[in-house]
Amino acid sequence: MTRMLATALLFAFSAGACAADRESAPDYRARGKQALDVITGGTTAQVLAGVAETSPDLAQWITDFAYGQVVSRPQMDLCTRELVTVASLTTQGNAPRQLTAHVNGALNAGCKPEAVVEVVTQMAVYAGFPAALNGLAVVKDVFAERKITPEQAKQP
Amino acid sequence: MTRMLATALLFAFSAGACAADRESAPDYRARGKQALDVITGGTTAQVLAGVAETSPDLAQWITDFAYGQVVSRPQMDLCTRELVTVASLTTQGNAPRQLTAHVNGALNAGCKPEAVVEVVTQMAVYAGFPAALNGLAVVKDVFAERKITPEQAKQP
Amino acid sequence: MTRMLATALLFAFSAGACAADRESAPDYRARGKQALDVITGGTTAQVLAGVAETSPDLAQWITDFAYGQVVSRPQMDLCTRELVTVASLTTQGNAPRQLTAHVNGALNAGCKPEAVVEVVTQMAVYAGFPAALNGLAVVKDVFAERKITPEQAKQP
Amino acid sequence: MTRMLATALLFAFSAGACAADRESAPDYRARGKQALDVITGGTTAQVLAGVAETSPDLAQWITDFAYGQVVSRPQMDLCTRELVTVASLTTQGNAPRQLTAHVNGALNAGCKPEAVVEVVTQMAVYAGFPAALNGLAVVKDVFAERKITPEQAKQP
Amino acid sequence: MTRMLATALLFAFSAGACAADRESAPDYRARGKQALDVITGGTTAQVLAGVAETSPDLAQWITDFAYGQVVSRPQMDLCTRELVTVASLTTQGNAPRQLTAHVNGALNAGCKPEAVVEVVTQMAVYAGFPAALNGLAVVKDVFAERKITPEQAKQP
Amino acid sequence: MTRMLATALLFAFSAGACAADRESAPDYRARGKQALDVITGGTTAQVLAGVAETSPDLAQWITDFAYGQVVSRPQMDLCTRELVTVASLTTQGNAPRQLTAHVNGALNAGCKPEAVVEVVTQMAVYAGFPAALNGLAVVKDVFAERKITPEQAKQP
Repeated sequence: MTRMLATALLFAFSAGACAADRESAPDYRARGKQALDVITGGTTAQVLAGVAETSPDLAQWITDFAYGQVVSRPQMDLCTRELVTVASLTTQGNAPRQLTAHVNGALNAGCKPEAVVEVVTQMAVYAGFPAALNGLAVVKDVFAERKITPEQAKQP
Repeated sequence: MTRMLATALLFAFSAGACAADRESAPDYRARGKQALDVITGGTTAQVLAGVAETSPDLAQWITDFAYGQVVSRPQMDLCTRELVTVASLTTQGNAPRQLTAHVNGALNAGCKPEAVVEVVTQMAVYAGFPAALNGLAVVKDVFAERKITPEQAKQP
Repeated sequence: MTRMLATALLFAFSAGACAADRESAPDYRARGKQALDVITGGTTAQVLAGVAETSPDLAQWITDFAYGQVVSRPQMDLCTRELVTVASLTTQGNAPRQLTAHVNGALNAGCKPEAVVEVVTQMAVYAGFPAALNGLAVVKDVFAERKITPEQAKQP
Repeated sequence: MTRMLATALLFAFSAGACAADRESAPDYRARGKQALDVITGGTTAQVLAGVAETSPDLAQWITDFAYGQVVSRPQMDLCTRELVTVASLTTQGNAPRQLTAHVNGALNAGCKPEAVVEVVTQMAVYAGFPAALNGLAVVKDVFAERKITPEQAKQP
Repeated sequence: MTRMLATALLFAFSAGACAADRESAPDYRARGKQALDVITGGTTAQVLAGVAETSPDLAQWITDFAYGQVVSRPQMDLCTRELVTVASLTTQGNAPRQLTAHVNGALNAGCKPEAVVEVVTQMAVYAGFPAALNGLAVVKDVFAERKITPEQAKQP
Repeated sequence: MTRMLATALLFAFSAGACAADRESAPDYRARGKQALDVITGGTTAQVLAGVAETSPDLAQWITDFAYGQVVSRPQMDLCTRELVTVASLTTQGNAPRQLTAHVNGALNAGCKPEAVVEVVTQMAVYAGFPAALNGLAVVKDVFAERKITPEQAKQP
């Protein structure tokens, strides 16, 4: 998965109408779509459709800025980026839909199921047990949907 | 650094008078002190002294539970554990002292300065720009104290 | 809408058993009911019924204090008051029922649908994308219920 | 302390320009000032002076609503009310001045120092260790200022 | 660092027998189960089953640490501990399942229904009306399930 | 002020290397700098210098995305945008530096001092009194620095 993304990013860098300009948006849009496709498992279009209906600009910011400029930066691997996002959303505790998307995103980015469980349960120390318990409930649902057994979730 | 700690923890598992009982507290206290010494750079005693004065039990919970039972678990490396903690504290935005301790902790656990910057700046997407800016101010102070130059902070 | 409220407030000021005393509660209750009727579109009674059953005093505080003393103050128009409330609730991200009430409240107070979308999407910068996305989901439901089309939502 | 407050409340009930009307503000103002004087140890005037300078109305709401209508209700003793407030502020973790005021308030309302330590340290479970540690730092400063020794803080 | 870890390991070897040691986990597990049985009304097993399936260790931490070491401490009565937990969860506003458990827990620990209502409604002052309203909605559901009438809820 | 910004935006729209492409970054950078100069009162360079030292990319995102793509959108006036930002930051309660910047930003964007006080004090209802009190303390400092007297702060 990570190699696939790396190739994708190399490709993305060579694309775009203003290739000479490192700020050029088409660049970021291509990178953002590539990163989003890895995280959503190729369902980016459906994911953004609902947002785009009420705010096409917010959907564009997600692609161009959030994923094109930030999350797809080559300085850190996508699995670690998804784990810190899972930590942030478990801490916030009020965005179960986004947490579901990023627990899936972490697994789609090549993280081990056990790593996701470790991040969420570690939040019991830093954000409190209720945050960890509600985060774990989301993880449990994602594992069930992906047919990941508790045993597999414990394999390092 | 990470390998050294992993070895130490594996070794620690075979030590102690209650080796048969995986719940036995002395085990966890030893593991907790070891993890804390890595994270605090060997200043655990000073770090816990202030807490212990008003609540010796809270200081004990930090050693035995937070670090002995949770953070020192061998299922995930200490650098990743510190990065998700930095993400959680940057998201909360109200614990600068703890964020300072864990930015140092991430570096003491062998994380690259650049990784810490990436985690904190990525929070702009998930927790908002104010959270990322205040987190970055803490990172900047830690880097200054550790004489990490902006150039070094950019080396992957 | 705003004129209707202004008239309502003038009327409210001349009412009350302790008219001479600017603190007198009857005054505030009348003002609070007027403001609540604008915000709830005249469904104040139903809105407060559920609260009053378990805590009649909390229902009273909402009318006399929250709306009678604070939200109905003449120093700022009700549309702007509702927009800053939408910003606060989108930021908190854990009160979808109240956000639904105040997205409706903003529209009932004469705010343009586009202004509500602008406030919620701007929160992506200050509270993070997950907060903005969940806020926008509430806006989308309210627009659907009020038969506001995406096109209308874009008319300034 | 509790008896003093009880007497104060009885007195307050018989006062006020609209004595027949249980909502009448003067009633609440008297009750609010009495409760505030217990919590602030008689320094209410100084405490509210800073607020009143920029927003006299907010200062009035604190007296009439927050303390006159809510905190002084006879249904629960003032010590328990201060302990749940300390729990709320320790959980929020971003209002050290208010937490300082309410740790003092809990002690002024007759709570044992140990009870305040128990509430703040218990928040480690429900709001995370950073929240408990920062809350405890406030408690430590208040105890130091009041010359409460760690030993006294442990007496039930 | 290596020498430091070696020293730590030597310390681990010198750690003593469990039985005499007040930190010994079985102690805490027994205390934790007892406290949890009071709070859950004897349904601890069911409550922890879901958690244990995905993270048996988190379930163990809840029993041994959260309830065995913290909540069951003799320094404060269980009713007051549950009330401050209700205050923390009402303030957080994003953990309705845990708030439901602790509103039941407060009643199971012998708190008066009225005290629970007072704590939740008082949060309107410290955490805002939306937090108090959503907390009260949880209280209302618990009271309905326990057949506590609004009249009973008002008996001190 | 608003007219100045409007002119600035018209100018910005006609600039940029990829003028045909509405996503082209140079456009957004020009718009972002213009909006930032209004909000910071012309001190954008100093404001971003500290950020740029540790993370030049975060500084760029603030200019190009936060202010160039979001805050400078013509669909809502800059004063209202700053008031909803003040509401969000007062609600978060953990970013006093950013709140200071946006209280100044609201005044620089042409908001009346009284409107800023109304927004912050209204947060007492939606985010609690501690959030409103800490927000008001920031407002008080900004007013003092700008020599805005309490009397002026009350002029509508």
